[in-house]
Amino acid sequence: MTQRFAAVSPALLADLTASVGADNLSTTGADLALHAQDAGFHPAHAAEVVVWARSAEQVARVLRLASQAGVPVTPWGVGTGLEGNAIPLYGGILLSLERMDAIVAVHADDFQVTVQPGICHKDLNEKLARYGLFFPPDPGANATIGGMLANNAAGIRTVKYGASKDNVLRMQVALPDGRLIYTGSRSVKQSAGYNLTQLFVGSEGTLGIITEATLKLVPVPQFMSAMIAGFATVEAAIETVVAVRGSGVDVAALEFLDETNTRALNAAGTDIAPYPTLLLEIHAAHAGTLEQDIAIVRDLCQQAGALSFRATADTAERKVLWNARHHAYETLVRNHPGQKIFIMDVSVPISAYPDLIAFSRQVLAEHGISGYMKGHAGDGNIHVELPFGDPDTYARVQAVNSAIVLKAIALGGTCTGEHGVGIGKAAYMAAEHGAALAVMQQIKALLDPQGILNPGKIFPQA
Amino acid sequence: MTQRFAAVSPALLADLTASVGADNLSTTGADLALHAQDAGFHPAHAAEVVVWARSAEQVARVLRLASQAGVPVTPWGVGTGLEGNAIPLYGGILLSLERMDAIVAVHADDFQVTVQPGICHKDLNEKLARYGLFFPPDPGANATIGGMLANNAAGIRTVKYGASKDNVLRMQVALPDGRLIYTGSRSVKQSAGYNLTQLFVGSEGTLGIITEATLKLVPVPQFMSAMIAGFATVEAAIETVVAVRGSGVDVAALEFLDETNTRALNAAGTDIAPYPTLLLEIHAAHAGTLEQDIAIVRDLCQQAGALSFRATADTAERKVLWNARHHAYETLVRNHPGQKIFIMDVSVPISAYPDLIAFSRQVLAEHGISGYMKGHAGDGNIHVELPFGDPDTYARVQAVNSAIVLKAIALGGTCTGEHGVGIGKAAYMAAEHGAALAVMQQIKALLDPQGILNPGKIFPQA
Repeated sequence: MTQRFAAVSPALLADLTASVGADNLSTTGADLALHAQDAGFHPAHAAEVVVWARSAEQVARVLRLASQAGVPVTPWGVGTGLEGNAIPLYGGILLSLERMDAIVAVHADDFQVTVQPGICHKDLNEKLARYGLFFPPDPGANATIGGMLANNAAGIRTVKYGASKDNVLRMQVALPDGRLIYTGSRSVKQSAGYNLTQLFVGSEGTLGIITEATLKLVPVPQFMSAMIAGFATVEAAIETVVAVRGSGVDVAALEFLDETNTRALNAAGTDIAPYPTLLLEIHAAHAGTLEQDIAIVRDLCQQAGALSFRATADTAERKVLWNARHHAYETLVRNHPGQKIFIMDVSVPISAYPDLIAFSRQVLAEHGISGYMKGHAGDGNIHVELPFGDPDTYARVQAVNSAIVLKAIALGGTCTGEHGVGIGKAAYMAAEHGAALAVMQQIKALLDPQGILNPGKIFPQA
Repeated sequence: MTQRFAAVSPALLADLTASVGADNLSTTGADLALHAQDAGFHPAHAAEVVVWARSAEQVARVLRLASQAGVPVTPWGVGTGLEGNAIPLYGGILLSLERMDAIVAVHADDFQVTVQPGICHKDLNEKLARYGLFFPPDPGANATIGGMLANNAAGIRTVKYGASKDNVLRMQVALPDGRLIYTGSRSVKQSAGYNLTQLFVGSEGTLGIITEATLKLVPVPQFMSAMIAGFATVEAAIETVVAVRGSGVDVAALEFLDETNTRALNAAGTDIAPYPTLLLEIHAAHAGTLEQDIAIVRDLCQQAGALSFRATADTAERKVLWNARHHAYETLVRNHPGQKIFIMDVSVPISAYPDLIAFSRQVLAEHGISGYMKGHAGDGNIHVELPFGDPDTYARVQAVNSAIVLKAIALGGTCTGEHGVGIGKAAYMAAEHGAALAVMQQIKALLDPQGILNPGKIFPQA
């Protein structure tokens, strides 16, 4: 750790307490431990103080105080990240947005909602249900909206509705020097100057802290169908992905499971044919569309030599089919008692998907690691799940991870499709971005000259 | 003009000639005049030399030479902008990208194409037709892809397919200091660091020059339908826009024409009922969807008390319906012999659309100006078309423009939905962005410290 920061002094603690109130600040070991690690496997590191902001103005004041003191600030939602994105690697202030969880305004006629960053997306969608609207990005975990925007979370519905970045119109952002700015506008079409919204989205709290966001919403679909199809080879499955996308059928999810994954799920009680498998979902405004979409997809699957195909527009049956996908991770955990599951995240152009999977298998075999592959195939996003139980296996898991990440970049893809860079992917930024990385570093130095905002993330450490 | 730049010296001319070749450089009055004004009404201003780049490396070299000499560089596509975005306001080098018009690679299985910036979108789509794919943003004019990206052009299909910014994955960009960088990746999902692609998109050539772009493509729809509906009031029409969007019907265009516009069109031979009117288009993967979508939209129009409704999935009839929209501008020009038509562009949250239209009517009446309103209602984007023939009327047109722009901002909207800031909207940037404007200025100063790239655009001039 070559960067050096000041420690949190008693004077700073007093200023912070005056800013947010004693109820919204803690230095207890329990609170520090609760905010020292995310849902991944990067080593825990404790902050010196946890501060819960209650307003944008408090966030700005904390940042101003931290800048004056030269103390690092790491923003925190609910800690569901996987790449250490919110670990306070250099101590200092852990700034939790969890208590800023209000819906500021529902603009139902505009299909928009304005929220504070600490509200979790599932809770938001529950509250939006009575308007017949929802915020579509769903990373699985019940992450905060602020965390989803900061890390550009995506998930299974991105193929139709886009990632978090595609579903935000306007944000309020606190800058390290204490400025509060609004980016964007509530107009869906915007062409007025630099797209600051997209500069802060996905910047993982290293440029500013999102204190409010106006999100795009979509109508809850009236009709849904699900399909599951098994193929002899990964190539046949991916050929079908390309064919489905080319057919114009507007899929809401297009997921891939390798046969290892289907076997693991079947061991837990499902009855998926043990082949490379596609799971599809379609959202439509009327039932007839579903029937015709299913007919088109069935034809395409058959043309690719599908060994099995099942479709349903029945809600109960659809839920059973999707249970397989949703419970895949828990099933893996149960199948590997005493082990942890490392989830890697890369993404490639869809035509490179079979290459990436073949390469991944080879690397897994070379390192003697068992891995499970599933992914958002419609987006070219793949997650290889790697169980480990001891330091040696973890080291080999890391070697596998590194090889696959570099292969994804070589195939024209990215080191992270949806988990963000955090700590875990920083080492690959130069390989992926080349000379553009220096531009990112220039922007970081411009907006955060002291480097106090979420230090140790995104950029490779010297 | 408070900024001062060096003139193009004989030595610089020699260096430029050595860089691009004598065939790709001109100082003739005719060539300078051809690149002195766009399709709008901002005063012409000539550059000192026109340079046609043939490669990214040449663009980078020209920028390096210009930086060393302190000479401004204004990038140019084919000059179809409306806000003076490409007028070389401070002379210097007009850098045309028109001769960089190659398709670099078609990635059909990835639904992507990589192009040079000078290719025009209609030409690109003609060449993509044999793959069954197209690039959906369509600003009307046959703009270059580079110009569309630089200005974030949008158009009538944005309601379904997004604006230019939503349809680009990766770009090569030349920076003012001569660096060439790649932003983004060919992966559809990306979460690896700062979104530099979106920083350069819409920056109107003030931060860097786009020298290559990988675009997202979509399948050419198998089936299309068009609908036209007339309403008693603007409010009823917009109520229908909200209802259609809320129904889940996935419209590919959702256009508004005021009754003045329908009367003007009818005077030119169409037979649209002279009411506030909606034009809709739907793209679908099968014919059945069209029928059901039409039924839903017809119901919603009737519920809103539509006075007329016509729908068709017939290609010939659909084209007739859309002719009304596509020829609206030419018809206006014919109806106002000897006059020019100023096209204003603002965008608001859809719920504010009736307010904006009512306000616009009032302002037009107050200033004694006749105006025609049409817009991409599905996006809240509106264009008021204002005929003028003399300086006094032009001054009143400008007063009307200013009042409506400020109203759009006050309604939570933006001073430009799709034409960009250029010269014409720079004065409104502070009103729209407040403290965020300073952040944009910081970024401009960071990447272009001498301010040589497209000076006089986006930012209010001192």
